[in-house]
Amino acid sequence: MNRSLLAAATVAALVVALPAAAQFQKPEDAIKYRQSALTVMGTHFGRLGAMVQGKVPFDAAAAAHNAQIVETMSKLPFTAFIDGTSQSQFPNTHAKPDIWAERAKFDAAATKMQDAAAKLNVAAKSGNLDQIKAAFGPTGQACKACHDDFRSK
Amino acid sequence: MNRSLLAAATVAALVVALPAAAQFQKPEDAIKYRQSALTVMGTHFGRLGAMVQGKVPFDAAAAAHNAQIVETMSKLPFTAFIDGTSQSQFPNTHAKPDIWAERAKFDAAATKMQDAAAKLNVAAKSGNLDQIKAAFGPTGQACKACHDDFRSK
Repeated sequence: MNRSLLAAATVAALVVALPAAAQFQKPEDAIKYRQSALTVMGTHFGRLGAMVQGKVPFDAAAAAHNAQIVETMSKLPFTAFIDGTSQSQFPNTHAKPDIWAERAKFDAAATKMQDAAAKLNVAAKSGNLDQIKAAFGPTGQACKACHDDFRSK
Repeated sequence: MNRSLLAAATVAALVVALPAAAQFQKPEDAIKYRQSALTVMGTHFGRLGAMVQGKVPFDAAAAAHNAQIVETMSKLPFTAFIDGTSQSQFPNTHAKPDIWAERAKFDAAATKMQDAAAKLNVAAKSGNLDQIKAAFGPTGQACKACHDDFRSK
């Protein structure tokens, strides 16, 4: 192993040392990861929203960038809703126990949001604000529906 | 404005209401965003590291996915190191004031990491573990170099 690889391995070891079966070493890591992915998604969705609402001038390249990030991030959080990571166990998450009690409903809500985000990304690539507006609505509704059911205030 | 768009606009308004000149409404938002992007990047870099180190079996598709996320995330955090968001102002960030005192050096370190992450992604797409190992080292070094200089313990 050369020096550069060794240095990198040291860095990686600081970040994570995973057992083969687990994506996350600790429940807290899963919570932090999903919150982080959702924060990045929400930030870029919000920037797109500002354009959709006319609060900032429409910029097709920025819209496409934001929608791309939204779609990419939409796929990440849900592997991190692992058992034992609801707000019953950890006070710093808004994840209701209902996520685990009604897992199929939660998964369907996640899929609906991911599908909407994918369509939003396609619309944003068109560079057409009307198409973006049409796809933005269902994406926002999908976010809100899941929050209403599964995220505590 | 139809109902679905209105609902989405309400959601977006909750997330962000941006003045045209600012990407972040509050300094805290910028800090949370950059920490989130770096958390997602670090998680996926760590998963790649576990394969590079032989702690988990090599899975070419998983490696490519992780490297893609690393490259995507590598481009996000740096617009969020806005003025007034060092650890002198906010106790919950590790961002040293040196970032702003030596901005050109910080930006160069960021670019170096982004370039390394892009090469890592190319290597990961090859599906060849040796190529991934060769590209993983410089990426880890670039992460570490920036942390050593600009991130407090």
